[in-house]
Amino acid sequence: MSFNTFGKLFRFTTWGESHGPAIGCIVDGCPPNINIKEDDIQKELNKRKPGQSKFTTQRKEDDKINILSGIFEGKTTGTPISMIIYNKDMRSRDYETIKNKFRPGHADFTYLKKYGIRDYRGGGRQSARETASRVAAGAIAKKVLQNKIGKKYKVIGAVTQLGILGCDLKNWNDNFIFKNPLFCPDKSILKLWEKYLLSIRKAGTSCGAIVEVRARGVPLGLGAPIYSKLDMDLASAMMSINAVKGVNIGSGMNSAMLTGEQNSDEIFKKGKNIKFKTNNAGGILGGISTGQEIIASFAVKPTSSIIKSRKTIDKFGKNTSISVKGRHDPCVGIRAVPIGEAMMHCVLLDHYLMNKAQCVN
Amino acid sequence: MSFNTFGKLFRFTTWGESHGPAIGCIVDGCPPNINIKEDDIQKELNKRKPGQSKFTTQRKEDDKINILSGIFEGKTTGTPISMIIYNKDMRSRDYETIKNKFRPGHADFTYLKKYGIRDYRGGGRQSARETASRVAAGAIAKKVLQNKIGKKYKVIGAVTQLGILGCDLKNWNDNFIFKNPLFCPDKSILKLWEKYLLSIRKAGTSCGAIVEVRARGVPLGLGAPIYSKLDMDLASAMMSINAVKGVNIGSGMNSAMLTGEQNSDEIFKKGKNIKFKTNNAGGILGGISTGQEIIASFAVKPTSSIIKSRKTIDKFGKNTSISVKGRHDPCVGIRAVPIGEAMMHCVLLDHYLMNKAQCVN
Amino acid sequence: MSFNTFGKLFRFTTWGESHGPAIGCIVDGCPPNINIKEDDIQKELNKRKPGQSKFTTQRKEDDKINILSGIFEGKTTGTPISMIIYNKDMRSRDYETIKNKFRPGHADFTYLKKYGIRDYRGGGRQSARETASRVAAGAIAKKVLQNKIGKKYKVIGAVTQLGILGCDLKNWNDNFIFKNPLFCPDKSILKLWEKYLLSIRKAGTSCGAIVEVRARGVPLGLGAPIYSKLDMDLASAMMSINAVKGVNIGSGMNSAMLTGEQNSDEIFKKGKNIKFKTNNAGGILGGISTGQEIIASFAVKPTSSIIKSRKTIDKFGKNTSISVKGRHDPCVGIRAVPIGEAMMHCVLLDHYLMNKAQCVN
Amino acid sequence: MSFNTFGKLFRFTTWGESHGPAIGCIVDGCPPNINIKEDDIQKELNKRKPGQSKFTTQRKEDDKINILSGIFEGKTTGTPISMIIYNKDMRSRDYETIKNKFRPGHADFTYLKKYGIRDYRGGGRQSARETASRVAAGAIAKKVLQNKIGKKYKVIGAVTQLGILGCDLKNWNDNFIFKNPLFCPDKSILKLWEKYLLSIRKAGTSCGAIVEVRARGVPLGLGAPIYSKLDMDLASAMMSINAVKGVNIGSGMNSAMLTGEQNSDEIFKKGKNIKFKTNNAGGILGGISTGQEIIASFAVKPTSSIIKSRKTIDKFGKNTSISVKGRHDPCVGIRAVPIGEAMMHCVLLDHYLMNKAQCVN
Repeated sequence: MSFNTFGKLFRFTTWGESHGPAIGCIVDGCPPNINIKEDDIQKELNKRKPGQSKFTTQRKEDDKINILSGIFEGKTTGTPISMIIYNKDMRSRDYETIKNKFRPGHADFTYLKKYGIRDYRGGGRQSARETASRVAAGAIAKKVLQNKIGKKYKVIGAVTQLGILGCDLKNWNDNFIFKNPLFCPDKSILKLWEKYLLSIRKAGTSCGAIVEVRARGVPLGLGAPIYSKLDMDLASAMMSINAVKGVNIGSGMNSAMLTGEQNSDEIFKKGKNIKFKTNNAGGILGGISTGQEIIASFAVKPTSSIIKSRKTIDKFGKNTSISVKGRHDPCVGIRAVPIGEAMMHCVLLDHYLMNKAQCVN
Repeated sequence: MSFNTFGKLFRFTTWGESHGPAIGCIVDGCPPNINIKEDDIQKELNKRKPGQSKFTTQRKEDDKINILSGIFEGKTTGTPISMIIYNKDMRSRDYETIKNKFRPGHADFTYLKKYGIRDYRGGGRQSARETASRVAAGAIAKKVLQNKIGKKYKVIGAVTQLGILGCDLKNWNDNFIFKNPLFCPDKSILKLWEKYLLSIRKAGTSCGAIVEVRARGVPLGLGAPIYSKLDMDLASAMMSINAVKGVNIGSGMNSAMLTGEQNSDEIFKKGKNIKFKTNNAGGILGGISTGQEIIASFAVKPTSSIIKSRKTIDKFGKNTSISVKGRHDPCVGIRAVPIGEAMMHCVLLDHYLMNKAQCVN
Repeated sequence: MSFNTFGKLFRFTTWGESHGPAIGCIVDGCPPNINIKEDDIQKELNKRKPGQSKFTTQRKEDDKINILSGIFEGKTTGTPISMIIYNKDMRSRDYETIKNKFRPGHADFTYLKKYGIRDYRGGGRQSARETASRVAAGAIAKKVLQNKIGKKYKVIGAVTQLGILGCDLKNWNDNFIFKNPLFCPDKSILKLWEKYLLSIRKAGTSCGAIVEVRARGVPLGLGAPIYSKLDMDLASAMMSINAVKGVNIGSGMNSAMLTGEQNSDEIFKKGKNIKFKTNNAGGILGGISTGQEIIASFAVKPTSSIIKSRKTIDKFGKNTSISVKGRHDPCVGIRAVPIGEAMMHCVLLDHYLMNKAQCVN
Repeated sequence: MSFNTFGKLFRFTTWGESHGPAIGCIVDGCPPNINIKEDDIQKELNKRKPGQSKFTTQRKEDDKINILSGIFEGKTTGTPISMIIYNKDMRSRDYETIKNKFRPGHADFTYLKKYGIRDYRGGGRQSARETASRVAAGAIAKKVLQNKIGKKYKVIGAVTQLGILGCDLKNWNDNFIFKNPLFCPDKSILKLWEKYLLSIRKAGTSCGAIVEVRARGVPLGLGAPIYSKLDMDLASAMMSINAVKGVNIGSGMNSAMLTGEQNSDEIFKKGKNIKFKTNNAGGILGGISTGQEIIASFAVKPTSSIIKSRKTIDKFGKNTSISVKGRHDPCVGIRAVPIGEAMMHCVLLDHYLMNKAQCVN
């Protein structure tokens, strides 16, 4: 039971509303004696910072992280790490118009109906601003795993489909991804994507995206039978990200269309190493990591706040319509890339610790 | 932390290996004073029973449920409900050939490497036989929700894609589904599916499937912000089912290809009722049920145990190949339908109880 | 949230009513590759078996344990261990008289008022019979800790106060405890205790007791700050035993009467070893084990079912009185000794695994 | 698994070190639409504030609470409530002398040995300063329960034994308790207690205490069988408070010395009300509240930091001695009163919500 906590042994709890005084995150269960400085976290946060290109919202959010506990003389002590980001660019007036209307595709309707009260300013708790906290937690998980596993451990995400446009996964280039504003892994398609996204924005609408996150250097044996499966926890992690509607592991939904011999990744030994010919499994068999690359992807629905007018009702139950004029991303999927990476780090560390706890070797 | 327990307030714990003396399930957190008899559970179990048609494995499993506790004079008492199914048709010799070889696509490799020991007989703990326990738990959740919500509450699942063949969702017919051996909801496509599946079997291979589960009559307000989202728990639930590789809520992965105005379900009032024009959201906004139909679908990969020979290694690390001749389903997705329904019931009841606990009204 | 589950990483779930077909226990989180046979568990169960002397109830309960899963070729596999004890000596007629009356000091009143239904036969779920399941779980925890820590690991409990009679702790003799029917550690007091207990029984009443449980060879470092303190979990564990009303760690309630210099255990180094002059702390400082002996004690209230007539009401709210004539222990504290030992094993293993998970070294 | 989180449905997570920039608390699971203002919390915090009399430490801690989230227009919204207290009076130099020596009775030794690192400044995480966070969480729980149950709900604690001096519980006077600096409930004994405590302080030592907490107006039915017993969670809650070594429910450890007819509280009906003649049970039977007053008491060991010299070792393993000269309470038990009250509120609200979740009526 943890409405605002994620994880089992490596746990983080987030708090804060979009337009309250601050948002924050408590990381619990972090091993001691890990070097962590604010800059390690800030670097990751900067990846999801808005206002970095014409393709993302023009809100300026500093997202300056402050560590309030759990680090002593540059090292974790095993006690909870509290991090806080003070909210700055809060133009509450922007949201007065939507105070009384339910934006279709948003949680306005369900939050108010469920709780009978909601902080509507900037989406309040339902704002994607909460994901900054996850990125902060993920930055810590990353440092721990790098310390425990070593340099071969790497998580990298990218947008692999932008609206109706895919990309060629064979062209995936780690180094290119964070050098382009769309977090596109395939240089050959970038121009087309940019053109497409500008047309989407110009049309006053938005588009969805697919984000793929890959983890390398993950040891064999993470995950556990039945209800602590690694894929189960990844599905839960990715689906918890705002606007995500679908999650795949490896070949995912496409596996439905494969035959048994197409799908089952053949195993062979080469020298001293056990290898797999393919990776439809996404690096997970029976809920347990195989030592291959872990591959999770997820669909992010199009931004629901659009200029195009949509029919809706107001909180008094009257039919009306709404056009949302704020500063919104034409594709929220892009900024979901660092969030997906963060969730991957957190799930992997959680299972790394669980594996220790199971005393399997 | 619950390796073999699912759920938060309505929790079930499963135990047992495929070829051990029995398998079973403990349901904890079931409200008192609900009428439950063994037959309510047996009826659901019979849906996933093997050996019912030429399209499923010919193993005979009685799957006869026995209730050992928690029911007094026909009613739940609030104490844990222990259920047991004794294993009958256990031909352990069938599995001697695979004792030392890792079947590609199976958990043989990861289980042994992780734990250093595994009960290989019939797949041991990794066998899909464990899902009988889930169906039993789901049958109880169903009874509770019918008692609390009333007759309008209904969960129904079907196979909506069989390998490369889809179906027309407009032809979805609740009453047809459990009258055909493929749990196909669309009468017009059934013959084609049957032909296709026989050809798959004849070719010594298998195919994947997509299962869709719909829940009606679910009250608005189930689910909670951020890390107890209803969709997050559904993703986790469905991904925990053996062989599942992808999960969608509503338009799911397809939402990536929609624009903002295509995707956001417009809201309107008709008479006294609040309605949505479409249901891309799958009945969930911001992690909370809207009162619409809840729609979750998932991909089941093709059965990994196939006659066609596959390259693999043995447990001593030598290259070899394997052809699995046992009595296997050509498409395990079919028997996943009642399991998907069961997981839906369990997740919904869990959130129903959480909603009570949040004292929202 | 776990109504019927105890523990975090090493977890056990119990089920079953006193007069249902069986009771049982699922152990989850047990490390793999530990040798366990039914006899290891049976031996512990036999310690709490009723009908072993004139000082305990004359009910005959075989308490024959059966392992149904989780052990393969004599070793744990990391999957849940399901154990079952079939109920035999169930004379339901004995309980007809108390069907409608609330026995003072029992849970009859609260269970029925809370749930609106209860299995009154033999106390149903509230029966101390449930503790057999704990002893079974404890036997497994013991085996694991002996395997991990080695022979120096030992847990031993005894009755240190019987009603108004104490004993001399300086005479504590491990070897004497299970050779006398009162689990008394002090040979010099036994005769007096026996005389006293027979007089209690003869008077148609009962008496309370204090049980002390000691754990030796526990490594330094088990437990964690603030809300996973070892002493906190021990308090919870011991208080969960039927009829327990108070729990002490080390000098416990008496520490209130000490001064700072009396209470704080001085530390010194002798050769290579760090030693403490005294052990008022009961082996725990700041929630973490010091490497000293862990000492927990708890008070068991007198058996509530007594022949002496007590005023009460019936379930229709009428004033009446009750005299309980069944086969009851004059002091339930005695049979609580193996239960206290079992809970100690379980809590220690849980924290042993948590310590691994914290990656502290 | 929650190293720094307490509770199941009403959960609070604390963070922060004594001499870090701040300490704080996140409350999760608080029902919506409850009026809460900072002053409600401040009032409770002021009770445990140091420097209020000559009997407590002369450190000045403002303990000024700030609410950062979860309250909108004066009301809870159902989202996490983040509270922060900035640390002010941090004279780190005071602690330089104890940087390298383990104070007997403190967690210095176990923390450093376990984690290999510790923030020694002012005790770091092990400082009782953490309990301010609990008091803040308790203030919220109190407001919720007052809102749900009404005015009859009241929790009140007091010191009932100060070192070797008890008090007469028959003289318990709610109104007197917070009007005297020793939180003594018995006016007739206060002068003696004051004299005694001054002598303790003058002797450069400290004394222990017993704190009793009573809860009135608690509805029948809170708590649940076996491993969510109300008394079990109270034991855990109270034992988690710094320096607590023993916990009693009702007659507690004394129940060992009673006979069956002395102990079992007789039940009778008077008019329409069900009454109990006595309350040895402390308001709990079978883990479930009876509707009587809930009574929990706990022993707080004497302050370990004393001027009297104690033998110890330093962190290099050398024998030495220590005399702690800081500004310490001669009896930390006094300031434990509001903490005990806070933990009582939190446990009761947790079980109140669980009771809702169990759908028992």
